[in-house]
Amino acid sequence: MSKHVLVATEKPFAKVAVAGIAEIFREAGYGLTLLESYKDKADYLKAVAAADALIIRSDNVDAEVLQAAPNLKIVVRAGAGYDNIDLKTAASRGVVAMNTPGQNSNAVAELVFGLMITLARRGFSGKDGTELRGKKIGIHAYGNVGKYVAMIARGFGMNALAFDPYVPAEKMRAEGVTPVETADELYSTCEYVSLHLPKTKDTVGSVNAALLSTFKKGGTLINTARAEVIDEAGLLQVMEARPDFMYGADVAPACAAEFAAKYQGRYCFTAKKMGAQTAEANVNAGLAAARQIVNFFEKGDTSFKVN
Amino acid sequence: MSKHVLVATEKPFAKVAVAGIAEIFREAGYGLTLLESYKDKADYLKAVAAADALIIRSDNVDAEVLQAAPNLKIVVRAGAGYDNIDLKTAASRGVVAMNTPGQNSNAVAELVFGLMITLARRGFSGKDGTELRGKKIGIHAYGNVGKYVAMIARGFGMNALAFDPYVPAEKMRAEGVTPVETADELYSTCEYVSLHLPKTKDTVGSVNAALLSTFKKGGTLINTARAEVIDEAGLLQVMEARPDFMYGADVAPACAAEFAAKYQGRYCFTAKKMGAQTAEANVNAGLAAARQIVNFFEKGDTSFKVN
Repeated sequence: MSKHVLVATEKPFAKVAVAGIAEIFREAGYGLTLLESYKDKADYLKAVAAADALIIRSDNVDAEVLQAAPNLKIVVRAGAGYDNIDLKTAASRGVVAMNTPGQNSNAVAELVFGLMITLARRGFSGKDGTELRGKKIGIHAYGNVGKYVAMIARGFGMNALAFDPYVPAEKMRAEGVTPVETADELYSTCEYVSLHLPKTKDTVGSVNAALLSTFKKGGTLINTARAEVIDEAGLLQVMEARPDFMYGADVAPACAAEFAAKYQGRYCFTAKKMGAQTAEANVNAGLAAARQIVNFFEKGDTSFKVN
Repeated sequence: MSKHVLVATEKPFAKVAVAGIAEIFREAGYGLTLLESYKDKADYLKAVAAADALIIRSDNVDAEVLQAAPNLKIVVRAGAGYDNIDLKTAASRGVVAMNTPGQNSNAVAELVFGLMITLARRGFSGKDGTELRGKKIGIHAYGNVGKYVAMIARGFGMNALAFDPYVPAEKMRAEGVTPVETADELYSTCEYVSLHLPKTKDTVGSVNAALLSTFKKGGTLINTARAEVIDEAGLLQVMEARPDFMYGADVAPACAAEFAAKYQGRYCFTAKKMGAQTAEANVNAGLAAARQIVNFFEKGDTSFKVN
């Protein structure tokens, strides 16, 4: 029997993404239901009843949704983060959960450089700034985003270094990146450090005063990862002790008011978390989700399974 | 007899630039007088009296200054623009005038990308943006800055095209840039156009409504050249007619109030002209000026003569 896919998006995909998703399922001979901008969870629960597969964005897949979906075999979060899926309940019901890693990576990497240039050029205020060319950028955790950061850095004539104990040094070298042995070495060598740590119990608060105070003179930290990887008390300590230090972040830290009061000109924050918010990332993630569903049913491919 | 050089800078060089300049003249065995942050033109006129060579920034070299400098053989403007030198009077007195082209180029090129990302990511407002990767950038006039723009664009995975009837197509191709035959072709093909036209009687107002209306849908124009190369009436016409069109500029146009009133979110202007305002460009230009003076006296090198 032919498969049926539900795309449930409270915040819809771009039109071009929807068209591409529809095309992928048409080719596979699957049915498709589109539930966009729904206001009532009941509509979502009703729509999921007939679904063999589900594509979501930031929509929740909790026990209630899973229970309402007796045929469901796979749910794919179009995007990187998947804390909106109840992974345990899904697993217990034999539902495979996936994300679409890497589709946002270039979007985030470009934002890193937007923040870097904005800080280096003093918020376009007309004050004398500095250049990126010839400087060192340290990539703290070298994954999908880090790889794009290194590619862009090369165009700016920067030297890219990286610290990531989980990535083989040879892989970094093959991609033109110099591996270093410790985070301290990264921070003390580089004018810029770009954070790409995932949020785990080991990384939360791990970028602390001890580490930040090793930063090279005139250093700038860019955080497009989760806010929680930074110890904010430590960050403020270093902002106070090191007037040469600057901080750019994709979304203001909880202590933003202190920055506004005391450190004008030394920080740049986005108005809300937006690293992944590009039309291209949206389209890429939607298409990847559709392809992963087809590959799962047709080839048993569980490459991006997270549960 | 040993040469004597005056560095006259109302707005001084960075310390590291001054140290480098002093080192170059010490090695050459030249005397050096440093006149920084002078308030009174009389001090400048007095200091120049003994000078065989003069380095300036935005300081004026008018007929009065030239008359006060009977020994002067060469004046070098540390920077690109030299409309602060009275070229004719200098020539009539046998004084060679030079600038230091190319030393600011990377500073300007980095600002181009700062403006591009800021616009593409909607001023970091959190609104959905777009990515540079895979897009085309058109370089309108391919000189020193354009070359750096092309290098940086490569890191972003952009395709660089250029229109410049004065630069051989083979040179562009050798540098990875695709030459096009007309400005219209550039604007209608590229998502981004970066202007690097010099200000001449032929270029003033040459970027007009006719040309801008050929812009590819969703196009963005970046102007880090002189404001005057754009016909502002035409620019406003296109802003009004084409809601998909965006404009970024190193210094607000005269019609900035209209942008603020009607086109929020579709423009980004620096607070004052700042493309060249980096510590690195400042140092590079100062050192280049010093080297050009030594090469002029020791080898008769007049490579960067502008009069």
